[in-house]
Amino acid sequence: MISIKDFEKLELKVGEIISVDDVPKADKLYKLEVDIGGKQITLIAGIKKNYEKDELIGKKIIVLTNLEPAMIKGIRSEGMLLAAVKNDDVSLLTVDKDIPIGSDVA
Amino acid sequence: MISIKDFEKLELKVGEIISVDDVPKADKLYKLEVDIGGKQITLIAGIKKNYEKDELIGKKIIVLTNLEPAMIKGIRSEGMLLAAVKNDDVSLLTVDKDIPIGSDVA
Repeated sequence: MISIKDFEKLELKVGEIISVDDVPKADKLYKLEVDIGGKQITLIAGIKKNYEKDELIGKKIIVLTNLEPAMIKGIRSEGMLLAAVKNDDVSLLTVDKDIPIGSDVA
Repeated sequence: MISIKDFEKLELKVGEIISVDDVPKADKLYKLEVDIGGKQITLIAGIKKNYEKDELIGKKIIVLTNLEPAMIKGIRSEGMLLAAVKNDDVSLLTVDKDIPIGSDVA
């Protein structure tokens, strides 16, 4: 069990995917540029087998924005997108009503 | 900044709302029964101003399932649903593709 304080350490925001690129020599990864409200970040996400690029552009997603950056395939990933996973299926988390980019998740 | 271990402490799952009831003497709260995959939990959520009951039933949501239970208006709330919030607007987090109830968020 965790406390609400453990949850509140996380900075989760609504972001919008601006662009999607392949990652050289990585057949499961995309490099995403994501607008998190007045700021654009780069994320590496293992969703290439599940999503076409066209499906992703403009999509609102949920991003963990205060995760320590990690170098993945030589690219600095500055956060993590949230997705539900079941075996090989992946479903991105999104919002069910329109809400501004940069809104906090609570 | 947090580490991936901080995130991994959280147990986030896809749930489906089974029923919605008012909470006596609480004009902002609903009592929800949510199926999180082979288990049903009760949640108190402050979304009454933003969602009609009919919109909620059957909806897939994201639930923090290992949060310490809290007593709210005399009801034991056994988790927390995730929503994006901006001023008075609230938008529930959901999945953008169908995926089984109980799937983990990673």
